[in-house]
Amino acid sequence: MNSYPESLSRLVESLKKLPGIGNRTAERLAFHLVNLSDDEAMALARAIRDVKQNLKHCSRCFNLTEHDPCPVCSDAQRDQALVCVVETPKDLMAFEKAASFKGVYHCLNGHIAPLEGIDPEDLNIDALVKRAQAGGIREIILATSPDLEGEGTAVYLRDALADVAERRKIRVTRIARGVPAGAEIENVSSAILNDALSGRQSFEGGAR
Amino acid sequence: MNSYPESLSRLVESLKKLPGIGNRTAERLAFHLVNLSDDEAMALARAIRDVKQNLKHCSRCFNLTEHDPCPVCSDAQRDQALVCVVETPKDLMAFEKAASFKGVYHCLNGHIAPLEGIDPEDLNIDALVKRAQAGGIREIILATSPDLEGEGTAVYLRDALADVAERRKIRVTRIARGVPAGAEIENVSSAILNDALSGRQSFEGGAR
Repeated sequence: MNSYPESLSRLVESLKKLPGIGNRTAERLAFHLVNLSDDEAMALARAIRDVKQNLKHCSRCFNLTEHDPCPVCSDAQRDQALVCVVETPKDLMAFEKAASFKGVYHCLNGHIAPLEGIDPEDLNIDALVKRAQAGGIREIILATSPDLEGEGTAVYLRDALADVAERRKIRVTRIARGVPAGAEIENVSSAILNDALSGRQSFEGGAR
Repeated sequence: MNSYPESLSRLVESLKKLPGIGNRTAERLAFHLVNLSDDEAMALARAIRDVKQNLKHCSRCFNLTEHDPCPVCSDAQRDQALVCVVETPKDLMAFEKAASFKGVYHCLNGHIAPLEGIDPEDLNIDALVKRAQAGGIREIILATSPDLEGEGTAVYLRDALADVAERRKIRVTRIARGVPAGAEIENVSSAILNDALSGRQSFEGGAR
């Protein structure tokens, strides 16, 4: 016998395609699934199928959703004139968990990364410009990550939105960079401290 | 919006139940599955279902198999009188990959570990004794792992097999402990060196 039974090999191969899962982990997971109760294992198989069948992108903001438009876009309580541009639905969820943002979103579905073969056309940037042209937007907050690709994407978006922003009087803003809440100054990097200094704001008594 | 769409949450929950997969990894895997092509994602779902539907334990040796008896037990070329007792089908496969063993196996399905609630009755030990009683076995090699539980299990098996081994003239052996092939002596532990010393064998010229 030179190999596992065919169905087991196939499961290992499928698991190996997942990110961060090598041969040994795939084997460990496969054996775990074999030993799991039928109910539990089938729950995972069903969950994968359901996600592929039920999840789609919101036609307005490209968030992942089971209903189009998504719960955020269809929420009358939210400020539809304030649009926060994020890279992914995961980033969107991070903002939702923070629970202070009351506007709506626009998911780019990634960031510009020429070296990885991700060009502006691969992202939902045209749709963002069209959304701005359609009117009813007061401010667009660029909330891509403060890393190389995220900053590059923000710069690209700023330029792509420049015309329509001027015509439609839309304010284009960028999330603040600075020291992260809870950090100790002695432990944060020079890049962070430089951001914090150059982005400093007046600090007067009373309400900010 | 306080949470992911329901089908996505359910997938994350299912993935989190796998060993070594926490919340963040489960989310990462779930988003990866969402972005995968339908074909690839469904291949994984199907692989899980197939493994649960098609895999069973060999009625003779308790190896995982799609056909009973398993390919090893039904191979006429193999020595059915030489039985290697392993803890798991994974251990069995390790021996098969080593490719020098031409006998058959007996999978215990674990090791005795009272602290984890695994008692001798939970393993395929009775079946091994019955197999020995049925006759036709010349030697039983105990190939449980050389760790605390594996050694304890080997000792338990030796005692459980003592009667039938004497009656049926079955030799009960234990795999050798010693320095692992390819190791440098300066890097192996004292326990390994002590095993290697106490298990030393005569080393004469010519064939061993």
